Amino acid sequence: MAVDSRERVHRAAVTLFAGKGFHGTGIRDLAQAAKLSSASLYHYMGTKEELLAEIMRESLERLLEAAALATSGLTAPAERLTTLVALHVLTHATQPDETRVVDNEVHALSPAARKIVVELRDAYEQLWASAIDDGVAEGVFHTEHPTVTRLALLEMCNGVARWYSPRGTLVLDELAAHYAQLVMRALAHTGTGENPDLAGCRAVVSQVWGIRTAGV
Amino acid sequence: MAVDSRERVHRAAVTLFAGKGFHGTGIRDLAQAAKLSSASLYHYMGTKEELLAEIMRESLERLLEAAALATSGLTAPAERLTTLVALHVLTHATQPDETRVVDNEVHALSPAARKIVVELRDAYEQLWASAIDDGVAEGVFHTEHPTVTRLALLEMCNGVARWYSPRGTLVLDELAAHYAQLVMRALAHTGTGENPDLAGCRAVVSQVWGIRTAGV
Repeated sequence: MAVDSRERVHRAAVTLFAGKGFHGTGIRDLAQAAKLSSASLYHYMGTKEELLAEIMRESLERLLEAAALATSGLTAPAERLTTLVALHVLTHATQPDETRVVDNEVHALSPAARKIVVELRDAYEQLWASAIDDGVAEGVFHTEHPTVTRLALLEMCNGVARWYSPRGTLVLDELAAHYAQLVMRALAHTGTGENPDLAGCRAVVSQVWGIRTAGV
Repeated sequence: MAVDSRERVHRAAVTLFAGKGFHGTGIRDLAQAAKLSSASLYHYMGTKEELLAEIMRESLERLLEAAALATSGLTAPAERLTTLVALHVLTHATQPDETRVVDNEVHALSPAARKIVVELRDAYEQLWASAIDDGVAEGVFHTEHPTVTRLALLEMCNGVARWYSPRGTLVLDELAAHYAQLVMRALAHTGTGENPDLAGCRAVVSQVWGIRTAGV
């Protein structure tokens, strides 16, 4: 029962923070959405800031775990990067609220919480950076500005959380494959490894987030 | 004097809405930032919702005007699209607060205001869509999913407002040219017209926004 209420508070916070912003969400909104009184709400959370920090930390830890699982055993830069892209697109399409909170609310964290979250985000982005750098070093990717390119491509993939609708014409696998193609083209990729293992990526998302992502 | 105060309220609102979100910004925050009392604040604005709608409408009207000016006389799809990209990147780099408000706060508008803003945004995105569609029809762009590609590339360019810092190593012209290259590559462009007239784009930004954007 306690676990359920805690989970309900967590889910209500993700929805509210994504829709109204962290600063726009009041404690009373949270209590109402979690179907708890404001007084009992505090049994299941610390401050609102701590709740935000926890949501962001958990989300980034999941993304890092998923990235490690999905790229495990892959060495070719194109395979690593397309797998990271597919995973990023799948998670942003299926968890738009959670990923929007992570992408938009870093400024609302206290300095101590921000440090932890930024370190996790940097560790995740480092996976993209090293795949891109290795590809450039091996001569299979071509870009004059690898850092700007990484930021541009990450923002492109983050955007999925802002516009993707499951009612659209593209199924998730096509969406992920299309983004992988855009990224490979943006890096003027030459060689093989452009087709990530989408079933494998979906299995990792299901395992880490505990949800089923139908790809077809 | 009245014009100055109105402008001060407008600028304070852009900064606050971008930093704390629309819902996170109180009337007292606005009054304080605009150096007005809460009572006199209402001489210079309607409701907070009307102020948001006005900011978004003006910003999108400027973007549309700038896009019309910068692409005037261009016919080749690659020239039109790289010019739109350069303009988008320059405005997002130099007006990060304003563009973030436009990109993030549509959900906070009333249905009537939202209709106007969404129509303006659609008119702007239609310029991108027709450049992409014309390029595909002419056989110089290659994509199986033009709509998804447009959304992905727009989000990539929107992202500039989230990470660009004038303290970075890339000057604005290099940034705009790099994004134009990424977009051309993503569309597997063949042919000429990949180098937008950056001085021309900067002149349009200066004209429409009244600011100087040093490119070199």
